[in-house]
Amino acid sequence: MQRQKLLINGERLKNELERFARFGRTDNNGVTRLALSEEDRLARDFFRSCCEELGLTVKIDDMGCMYATLEGARNLPPILIGSHLDSVKKGGRFDGVLGVLAGLEVVRTLVENNIKPQIPITLVNFTNEEGARFEPSMMASGVLSGKFDKNMMLKKKDAAGITFEEALKSIEYEGKVENRLKEGTAFLELHIEQGPILEKEALAIGVVECVVGMACYDIEITGESDHAGTTPMSMRKDALFAANNLINEIRRVLGPLDEELVFTIGRVNVYPSIHTVIPNKVVFSLEARHKNPEIVKTFKEFVEDLPNRGLNEGCEVTTTKLWERDTVWFDTEIVNQLEKSAQSLGYSNKRMVSGAGHDAQFIASLVPSAMLFVPSFNGKSHCEEELTSWEECEKGVNVLLDTVLALLSK
Amino acid sequence: MQRQKLLINGERLKNELERFARFGRTDNNGVTRLALSEEDRLARDFFRSCCEELGLTVKIDDMGCMYATLEGARNLPPILIGSHLDSVKKGGRFDGVLGVLAGLEVVRTLVENNIKPQIPITLVNFTNEEGARFEPSMMASGVLSGKFDKNMMLKKKDAAGITFEEALKSIEYEGKVENRLKEGTAFLELHIEQGPILEKEALAIGVVECVVGMACYDIEITGESDHAGTTPMSMRKDALFAANNLINEIRRVLGPLDEELVFTIGRVNVYPSIHTVIPNKVVFSLEARHKNPEIVKTFKEFVEDLPNRGLNEGCEVTTTKLWERDTVWFDTEIVNQLEKSAQSLGYSNKRMVSGAGHDAQFIASLVPSAMLFVPSFNGKSHCEEELTSWEECEKGVNVLLDTVLALLSK
Repeated sequence: MQRQKLLINGERLKNELERFARFGRTDNNGVTRLALSEEDRLARDFFRSCCEELGLTVKIDDMGCMYATLEGARNLPPILIGSHLDSVKKGGRFDGVLGVLAGLEVVRTLVENNIKPQIPITLVNFTNEEGARFEPSMMASGVLSGKFDKNMMLKKKDAAGITFEEALKSIEYEGKVENRLKEGTAFLELHIEQGPILEKEALAIGVVECVVGMACYDIEITGESDHAGTTPMSMRKDALFAANNLINEIRRVLGPLDEELVFTIGRVNVYPSIHTVIPNKVVFSLEARHKNPEIVKTFKEFVEDLPNRGLNEGCEVTTTKLWERDTVWFDTEIVNQLEKSAQSLGYSNKRMVSGAGHDAQFIASLVPSAMLFVPSFNGKSHCEEELTSWEECEKGVNVLLDTVLALLSK
Repeated sequence: MQRQKLLINGERLKNELERFARFGRTDNNGVTRLALSEEDRLARDFFRSCCEELGLTVKIDDMGCMYATLEGARNLPPILIGSHLDSVKKGGRFDGVLGVLAGLEVVRTLVENNIKPQIPITLVNFTNEEGARFEPSMMASGVLSGKFDKNMMLKKKDAAGITFEEALKSIEYEGKVENRLKEGTAFLELHIEQGPILEKEALAIGVVECVVGMACYDIEITGESDHAGTTPMSMRKDALFAANNLINEIRRVLGPLDEELVFTIGRVNVYPSIHTVIPNKVVFSLEARHKNPEIVKTFKEFVEDLPNRGLNEGCEVTTTKLWERDTVWFDTEIVNQLEKSAQSLGYSNKRMVSGAGHDAQFIASLVPSAMLFVPSFNGKSHCEEELTSWEECEKGVNVLLDTVLALLSK
């Protein structure tokens, strides 16, 4: 069957993105649309009405995930397209919502071109991807894929003490367990990169091969808090100086390990943090991410050996693994098709990894999945400055449409 | 005139130290006796009654400082002996109170031996040395010596919003400005070392030559907070990595500068301090202390040049001097006499500096002053574990007595 050559309506996509940016808009043109908040409810209601207007059937599952289905000629597992409508506090206008509205634009393009797909197409809005109001992130896709326990998740509380379950009921988005996503022909998630690579390399499209594996540790150093004025340098057990040594070692060893390895010391707490007192405790987080499990293993062995490298300045050093996750590889055929679609449209592109987590990494265990990235201005996300140009959004959705058409034409 | 060979009553000193330890005793045998608190009032009242029982005349000045005078045969400026009765929260039983009760024990020894001094002897309790309830520390001695403005100090508030002036009135220790310490033949302050040197070197007595000069800076580093998973190492502006470089440089340069230099990075704040976010800001304090103003000057020039050393990892680095103070040298004659007294009593001793601040550093501008240190167990102070053995306290007071007798016999 000859593939139909179609392009989406960029103006319509832009208008829709702008319309959704109103749900929770902040003073600085960002968005605060926490999961299951009133702003989230308004966005969901509007998304539902858009879908119903198009003739899609909307269902809700027991975690509040929304599924809007365009019927297919054959009763096959659907092609799923989606992401999430929730945002972090003072987040941006593109993270998540772009992947949902991309699906809507793809279906609109099919409908207006009278294309009746052989396979059903289902648009998905996953509840609480961000985990900004209720931890953990990717909560609903985690439950769907069996990674998280539903009953534990229902009891998660926000800062005001409201449970996830209460919030879900209060916005009237508690649906049925039988509506859950269980199978699919493919799951496609278009997302902003949230990093600087595409922009830096002046590329339009990132074809995402995997979500990288990672491990995260706490390093705790215990020394002695003495008087800054009366304790000679040679008689100190300075936890900060020990931390400094360890950070040197971390950079010395991990820096040259692999160009694609990222490692971050993000959370640092120093105690008692008084200018006249030598610190007696430092706790810092250390995480590293890489697609190659061998490199993550090398990282873990290195961290666990850190206390034994003679760098402790007389302090106690302990390391605690907080968590780890394995690399999730996306479906090779879909990845290949996304690349082919980008190329056939003449868009510059490269294969890349996702350093951030996404719903697709959990859904990949249920459905052959893959992701597309579009550039993030200055690499920024989760902030009001988050920006992807309308043209870049449009290109991303065109690749998605082309891939959907390819999947339909198989 | 032949010096009288006298020793103090160690048992009486111990009993008095134990009695004062009851005013504000904590569960772990420490003391919480914040300035102008009810506990402070009880200690003051008891100190006053002890002095009056001995026949001393007690006066209070407008900052609440207490002066208890044993008359002298001649109307000369008094020999002053004292320190402070206030403590930090969960402090120890020796810091400050030892110097006040040392004076009391010296006078008791003189009185019971029917020694009528030629020169008046005045015991002093300086108000709010610790600054733990009302900042700054050494508040009253600072006002007496013209370093602090009285009216500003009266308005200082504690955490509950009570002003220093209100607290002073509420415990009925607001006295008269004309009672202020204005002159003296000598001021002697016995204090615990608050450091590990005497204990480490197994010495009984530290003869303090000076309170060292110091300078304190804030170093602020501003980078960019990007996503820990999506930002390649080469594209980061990691404020923590820049801080790490600067701390390396601080240790590399200051470490070998002088054996007696102490430098401390005590307060450290990292922002936003989230494990998945590259730190965009680090602020840390850096202070250094040394008796030689040339070394303090070298330190200051080094700190102010820190941003220009190519260590900033693309971040902005600024340095702000928070404050500095010059070295205060004590009176050579009194220092010599204290040393002579320690030697004549057969007590091991050394000359040393005070790295911590004390009332004597301000009083030195009004009266020829000097200090004595006795050992601190494990170098600890400002904590419930603060400890000096009774024998060590006794030795310190014996040196004080011998020096007072020497000053009287001139």
